[in-house]
Amino acid sequence: MKYQFFNEEMISKNEIEELKKVANECRGDILLMTTNAKSGHPGGSMSSIDILTLLYKYANISKDNYCDDDRDRIIVSNGHISPAVYSILGRNNFFDVDDAITYFRKAGYPFEGHIDRKVPGVEWITGNLGQGISSAAGIALANKLQGKLAHTFVLMGDGEQQKGQIVETRRFISKYNLTNITVIIDYNELQISGSIHKVIPQDLKAEYESTGWEVLEVNGHDFQALYNALRYSTHLAAKPVVIIAKTIMGKGVSFMENDEKWHGQTLPENDLEIALKELKIDRKLSTYRAKREEKKEFSFKLCDFYSNTKFDVNGSLLYESKTDNRSAFGNALFDIAQKNPKKVVVFDCDLAGSVKTNKFASDFEDYFIQNGIQEHSTASISAGCSTSSLLTFWADFGVFAADEVFNQLRLNEINHTNLKIAATHLGLNVGEDGKTHHAINYVALLNNLYDFKLILPADPNQTDRAVRFAAKELGNFFIGMGRAKLEPVKKEDGTLFFDENYKYEYGKADILRDGDDITLFTYGNMVPYAMEIYNILNKKGIGVRIVNISSPLKLDEDAIRESLKTKLFITYEDHNVKNGLGAILSSYLIDNGISKKVLKFGVTEYAKSGIADEVYKFAGLAPEDVAKKIEESL
Amino acid sequence: MKYQFFNEEMISKNEIEELKKVANECRGDILLMTTNAKSGHPGGSMSSIDILTLLYKYANISKDNYCDDDRDRIIVSNGHISPAVYSILGRNNFFDVDDAITYFRKAGYPFEGHIDRKVPGVEWITGNLGQGISSAAGIALANKLQGKLAHTFVLMGDGEQQKGQIVETRRFISKYNLTNITVIIDYNELQISGSIHKVIPQDLKAEYESTGWEVLEVNGHDFQALYNALRYSTHLAAKPVVIIAKTIMGKGVSFMENDEKWHGQTLPENDLEIALKELKIDRKLSTYRAKREEKKEFSFKLCDFYSNTKFDVNGSLLYESKTDNRSAFGNALFDIAQKNPKKVVVFDCDLAGSVKTNKFASDFEDYFIQNGIQEHSTASISAGCSTSSLLTFWADFGVFAADEVFNQLRLNEINHTNLKIAATHLGLNVGEDGKTHHAINYVALLNNLYDFKLILPADPNQTDRAVRFAAKELGNFFIGMGRAKLEPVKKEDGTLFFDENYKYEYGKADILRDGDDITLFTYGNMVPYAMEIYNILNKKGIGVRIVNISSPLKLDEDAIRESLKTKLFITYEDHNVKNGLGAILSSYLIDNGISKKVLKFGVTEYAKSGIADEVYKFAGLAPEDVAKKIEESL
Repeated sequence: MKYQFFNEEMISKNEIEELKKVANECRGDILLMTTNAKSGHPGGSMSSIDILTLLYKYANISKDNYCDDDRDRIIVSNGHISPAVYSILGRNNFFDVDDAITYFRKAGYPFEGHIDRKVPGVEWITGNLGQGISSAAGIALANKLQGKLAHTFVLMGDGEQQKGQIVETRRFISKYNLTNITVIIDYNELQISGSIHKVIPQDLKAEYESTGWEVLEVNGHDFQALYNALRYSTHLAAKPVVIIAKTIMGKGVSFMENDEKWHGQTLPENDLEIALKELKIDRKLSTYRAKREEKKEFSFKLCDFYSNTKFDVNGSLLYESKTDNRSAFGNALFDIAQKNPKKVVVFDCDLAGSVKTNKFASDFEDYFIQNGIQEHSTASISAGCSTSSLLTFWADFGVFAADEVFNQLRLNEINHTNLKIAATHLGLNVGEDGKTHHAINYVALLNNLYDFKLILPADPNQTDRAVRFAAKELGNFFIGMGRAKLEPVKKEDGTLFFDENYKYEYGKADILRDGDDITLFTYGNMVPYAMEIYNILNKKGIGVRIVNISSPLKLDEDAIRESLKTKLFITYEDHNVKNGLGAILSSYLIDNGISKKVLKFGVTEYAKSGIADEVYKFAGLAPEDVAKKIEESL
Repeated sequence: MKYQFFNEEMISKNEIEELKKVANECRGDILLMTTNAKSGHPGGSMSSIDILTLLYKYANISKDNYCDDDRDRIIVSNGHISPAVYSILGRNNFFDVDDAITYFRKAGYPFEGHIDRKVPGVEWITGNLGQGISSAAGIALANKLQGKLAHTFVLMGDGEQQKGQIVETRRFISKYNLTNITVIIDYNELQISGSIHKVIPQDLKAEYESTGWEVLEVNGHDFQALYNALRYSTHLAAKPVVIIAKTIMGKGVSFMENDEKWHGQTLPENDLEIALKELKIDRKLSTYRAKREEKKEFSFKLCDFYSNTKFDVNGSLLYESKTDNRSAFGNALFDIAQKNPKKVVVFDCDLAGSVKTNKFASDFEDYFIQNGIQEHSTASISAGCSTSSLLTFWADFGVFAADEVFNQLRLNEINHTNLKIAATHLGLNVGEDGKTHHAINYVALLNNLYDFKLILPADPNQTDRAVRFAAKELGNFFIGMGRAKLEPVKKEDGTLFFDENYKYEYGKADILRDGDDITLFTYGNMVPYAMEIYNILNKKGIGVRIVNISSPLKLDEDAIRESLKTKLFITYEDHNVKNGLGAILSSYLIDNGISKKVLKFGVTEYAKSGIADEVYKFAGLAPEDVAKKIEESL
């Protein structure tokens, strides 16, 4: 614990003088940094620097403990005020502040335009507004669940308050009464287009109060007032607290104050000189500008947040008869949760019964986190939680876990989170719910990312093992499942294909059947239908090789090469035909100079609403129709 | 105008009896419909049917005017209560109600699981919660701008209130004081997981009031009370009004009431009989079940909402010197707006200066709609507005107009909207803002859709003509641009490639240069760099054909075939290499059995933050490096 002034109601005069001095130097840093880079956001940096200066004094985070699990966190949700953040971190010796001033926004250096976690002390990569508070809420929840006393501070912009995701998060924080979080809003009343009151009139106090928060309004340039508010929020408040800190954009330089043009515009060199004079700072841009052309190596590394995350995922549940993959997921989850008490958290968006987390919910009530129909915030809150030592799952329907929150997943990946998403009701399998609920872009959406792992198990047995695999491995996973009950895949001798000895291996294809004429690549929902095609064509003397690609984002090159023995490649998926497995396989073949015809079966237009088999029929994906087309094309 | 009771404060007893009778029949319809389909959502349908029954009596929409521009709209945001909607529409003779009961949720029939615009009287396809109110707001705004007196009613669920997009929209409606909209919440206090108060505690009254709304709380099964509230909201209120209609889930059937299990579960046949008896409805499931297997053709057609949407887009602005495409967009927009007074609306999310809509904003203040940093709602509000006879643009940065709102664009497409999105700051061109702001997935995201048109112009002249084209053509467009100033493309003789005679043609590639050795397919930001590659390689005696693919979602097959004369295909884009033009071209080649090597240059990992040229260099996209690699691979 830091909070070194807690027992005192007043900060000493000396302390205040010291804070003022540091903040003033930071203002110089900010202006030098942005003018040196000829790019960046000085206005909000200047208005928020007093807040940040006090915060880094107040919170238990320093150059010595910034990787410790028990540290306080300062999350800056409005990531464009990176000059302020780099400056105050530098001034607190997380690194040499001159390096930030020198290399700000220079390609190849860590001091990126929006704050980056590579920089020591930066807790979360933000920039797309509205997400930082959600991730902070996930961290605060994890702390609370683990009985940690650490506090999470979130600095936000006032324009940012317009994002709907923030309101969802406010409700979440209020529901779970996360008094270990304090929000501070840099309320300079200006955004790019001018007055926030003209852009979107918003009564912030009333809005926060309506969602169960306590609101403190203080002068954001008065250290004593800010201190009182922080002290109240960290030690006395019974509810989540937001501090609306009234500030002045461009504060400290007379000609910059209250002018929105400095939101994202840097000072010309002449103006910089005048500004530095007004701040009584005797530093020269030329020093930094010269150094900017010199090369320097930085060995900054991400903290190893995940060292405590080893879980017992041993064992397997075997399915001999028809079972839906989502039930196999729910059972595996429950098994893992039993083996790792107080270590597994599950997020839900009002669908526990359908996504099969209800068994977990009733036995592990405290670790079942219900965030209602608030998917945007859930995607970010669960990701925040996943950076703790808790194993974090979020289960939802595919359209909500992928289509609705793509940008949240993107930012999660950029932040190196460790979230396990179980997405059910993928594909046309959802049948009756119709096109708004048919998730047909999950392969494509996840393929937009670079490290997210996508697993689409073929049956309940593979699902069981895939869930254990994802739980054990670090990183973000998206395990995709349909709705229907699936026959466990069996070998030709009638025994289970994915038996008790099977272990999931990412990037390994499963040769479910072999044959010499065609290779049918498929996954998930379509595996049982593929087996039907096999039977139909086999009777006609056509040899069918069925290759289950459970990880379409990492193709099994050996399996593809071995399949070249067959005359024709088929891809068969209830996914948008333009950008699913068929497209990925095509790219792979072209990239590797392999000339091979691929016949793609997939979703070519928004599908019908009806029972799944009929929907597949209309979509041209019924096994008998596909078999016929294959036969014709041979 | 309908509002037939307006002059009366009381509805007559007879009228109330009649409403009760209709609602009761509808309850029978709902139960028969869902049990017949063995799928659907009876609970909320039963709680909301009294509201809907009154609404269709109250509002100026009927079987005779439902395609008229001046009609009132009833938008049902919680699209899963489709049984209620189909029933009341049928009871108001929009079609035969028996057809809905018979064919509900049957593949190939119009009565889909979530309400569908194919069904006469359905105004908006919903199902993914939170979007319906936004689209309604766009429609109400368009009515207000056009001086139409029509009113827009939005029915919403109470669980749905959790979505953040709704709060954004509440603020928007309040800002523009759209008193021509009335929201009615079916407040049955249950969602899938049980009590809404347990799922996400929410003080709806306080929340709405905090965003400037007037809140009326009434008994949602009391026609007189509902009528009073509607009458107040349509004729007397000075602010936007929300009617919180307290209802009972499953209302009307004793054993269904107040039980959340009936949210998405249908009655077993036995229970249906008991329920129908309680409702005193003498109809038999067997009648409908038998008919369900008979085929029937429906000739429902979408209303031609767009008949009034012819705009004067003639003329062209020519650029001879370096200009950014976004400025060319801004100028074309301004020109079109001048030629079509009071016909062009532009939405902004606090970025007018950057996306170059500021000139429009100052001259056409009333038609410049500022929705702040609220992209989710903007994507849907602008789409709602686009279904009016106003030409509707939304300009934003690429990451916000694509990555952040993918699911909103998907629902827009499903709704056949007519929105023109101008997305700027695409690709690595944004440089310093870094990876959170580098839009590198726009081709892939738009390729997930089926009809959205994507145009990526090569220079300001092509931009000018593309904007005019998109303004003239019906349908959704995404015109993508970078940030940098681009040299106008010139022919080898130094004259403009896209000159005053050039007209934009979707799906037509532009052969910017010709050569025999390689073909370089590119677009947008990369065209000037491609020209550099041409120069470098030409000096080395390598003939380069440069093909500008401004519409990567519709390849120019002729241009590709003609390019087969070259030995090697190159794709060159500052887009995710896995799923941009390179991937689309690969799929095309494989689909057409064309064996051709493609060397793909694109973004292979999150890029650096720095000046654009350096960022390209780090990403391996600098022209000299690409030229070298091409040379090596020949």
